Amino acid sequence: MTEKQKYLPVLAITIGDPAGIGPEIAAKVFALPELYGQCRPLLVGNAKIMRSAVELTKVGLKINPVFRVQDALFQHGTIDVFDLPVKNPDLIEYGKISVEAGDVAFRSVEKAIDLALSGEVDGTVTNPIHKGAINAAGHHFSGHTEIYAHYTNSPKYAMLLADEKIKVIHVSTHVSLRKACDLVKKERVLEAIHLLDDGLKMIGVEQPHIGVAGLNPHAGDGGLFGDEEITEIIPAIEKAKSEGIWVEGPFPPDTLFALASGGRFDGCVAMYHDQGHIPFKLAGFQWDEESGSMKSVKGVNITLGLPIIRTSVDHGTAFEIAGKGIASPEALVCAIEYAIKLFYSGKKK
Amino acid sequence: MTEKQKYLPVLAITIGDPAGIGPEIAAKVFALPELYGQCRPLLVGNAKIMRSAVELTKVGLKINPVFRVQDALFQHGTIDVFDLPVKNPDLIEYGKISVEAGDVAFRSVEKAIDLALSGEVDGTVTNPIHKGAINAAGHHFSGHTEIYAHYTNSPKYAMLLADEKIKVIHVSTHVSLRKACDLVKKERVLEAIHLLDDGLKMIGVEQPHIGVAGLNPHAGDGGLFGDEEITEIIPAIEKAKSEGIWVEGPFPPDTLFALASGGRFDGCVAMYHDQGHIPFKLAGFQWDEESGSMKSVKGVNITLGLPIIRTSVDHGTAFEIAGKGIASPEALVCAIEYAIKLFYSGKKK
Repeated sequence: MTEKQKYLPVLAITIGDPAGIGPEIAAKVFALPELYGQCRPLLVGNAKIMRSAVELTKVGLKINPVFRVQDALFQHGTIDVFDLPVKNPDLIEYGKISVEAGDVAFRSVEKAIDLALSGEVDGTVTNPIHKGAINAAGHHFSGHTEIYAHYTNSPKYAMLLADEKIKVIHVSTHVSLRKACDLVKKERVLEAIHLLDDGLKMIGVEQPHIGVAGLNPHAGDGGLFGDEEITEIIPAIEKAKSEGIWVEGPFPPDTLFALASGGRFDGCVAMYHDQGHIPFKLAGFQWDEESGSMKSVKGVNITLGLPIIRTSVDHGTAFEIAGKGIASPEALVCAIEYAIKLFYSGKKK
Repeated sequence: MTEKQKYLPVLAITIGDPAGIGPEIAAKVFALPELYGQCRPLLVGNAKIMRSAVELTKVGLKINPVFRVQDALFQHGTIDVFDLPVKNPDLIEYGKISVEAGDVAFRSVEKAIDLALSGEVDGTVTNPIHKGAINAAGHHFSGHTEIYAHYTNSPKYAMLLADEKIKVIHVSTHVSLRKACDLVKKERVLEAIHLLDDGLKMIGVEQPHIGVAGLNPHAGDGGLFGDEEITEIIPAIEKAKSEGIWVEGPFPPDTLFALASGGRFDGCVAMYHDQGHIPFKLAGFQWDEESGSMKSVKGVNITLGLPIIRTSVDHGTAFEIAGKGIASPEALVCAIEYAIKLFYSGKKK
């Protein structure tokens, strides 16, 4: 390890569900020499599984299994793997839900959180897990965010989706659309504005400019199609403005994200899951008809409101292409970059 | 007029609100020589206003005011204007709502419909009008689609939004999001699938492949976040399949449009206004930070279910840039192309 490297953040990168594309995109990312100039990366998962991923991707890296962070080498050419036991690795098949895969996927997240809470690593970056698999393995969570909130004991948290053009936070996420309408309340909208303003500052935007969406088409058109803009959203925006936050809205939802993608806003507040996810995924994902898969998946998911750093790729396990070696590591590269930004913005405080 | 030209469709192109960008983008489109190889275009509006637009855009075209379609020349170099009287044209200011502007905008639509119903023109293409202006002028309609439905006496109609990548129809449009949830009913979803299937065939897709969105995040995740997918949407899809329509779904809304934009589907059914409008506008519009305006606005709006052809640009009056001569005519070119497609597909029947 060089002198300079000693000051780089140590990042725990989870393996994700090994039946998915996590191990192979991780292998591709560890093969990038520039990675070691930016951070000290540690894969949290299983050495045997990573050995297969290295063979699959032909990146020609060695595996260094470790059981303590201080044994990691942080040298390009080697993947340091915090080695978690897997009883029957041979039962794991690409593209199939299994207890073995779900269990190691879950335990790598749990371990990464643990290492971050104890200060042994400076941040965590996650690869996709499969909800069905972790639940089959007896770990009853609906996703990463809930696991992090639980083990870090965080009552107020939110996911910030970030890609080059669009950054968006949601007033609600995994609830029905009817329930999402009920959740558009002044307090929640204001909380989302606060979390977004803080989150944007944490990723390096000095004076964030925020756009807020309406709930209804045309932002209600003056109360003609719904009045949540008038009763809930405008009061929240006015309150945020009075606190000195640079925020505008409510905008017609179909205009806001087109404006944001052109650089008009640093971040957006979406009123419900798909209002933010549709433009985010459209901007960051691209379906490739020829290969029958998504390409150019650059989206990153940042959990705000935790005592530790957590960023993640925003795509799923991609079972349909797992094991083919064709998955793009772009999103994981972006997730690592955001974790590094968060590390340095934390240092500045 | 050449021999070949005699068989080209005559298209009535409305002027739009003259305080907006309609006249100037029309002038730019009439300046394209290739236009006259594809159709016989007739502007419906006012000669004096079009003369100003020609000066503004420096396209160097003559104005030929006519009061009957048969007096039109259909020659490149001249704009044939079906000349409607305007009492005080000097009261019309760029970017301002006025009774004069709203009135001529409305009457040009009314006249275009009239000419199409009487068979004097083969189709109509509309430029943007301003709801506030037409209502100020005493014409109480919420938009073009309603004017067309009223004057053509059409009970079942829907707008199909079309751009190069995404084509989308909606189960509901100008209602609150809560009301939109109520309107997700098997019959309406099935009707939207039927209208889309027909509409796609009319614009030249021989065997349309249709994707249907869910209403809730993750398409309800098996009933976990809302059950409209199970009770309403899936039954509609099954019924459509049994009729031989090539339709799939319900897809998670945030995935469907990314798939569609990559060419996986010929058209999509959206459950509510913004579910379809957000990806449509994001794909077709681009905000240009430098000029502070939208550029590359290619979206077309096609009204299905009318006895006459109607296509339209999907952007608005763009008051903020009207009169500067910088507005892009791209969407109007696309709208004309779709009207021509619809004309020939009607001929085939």
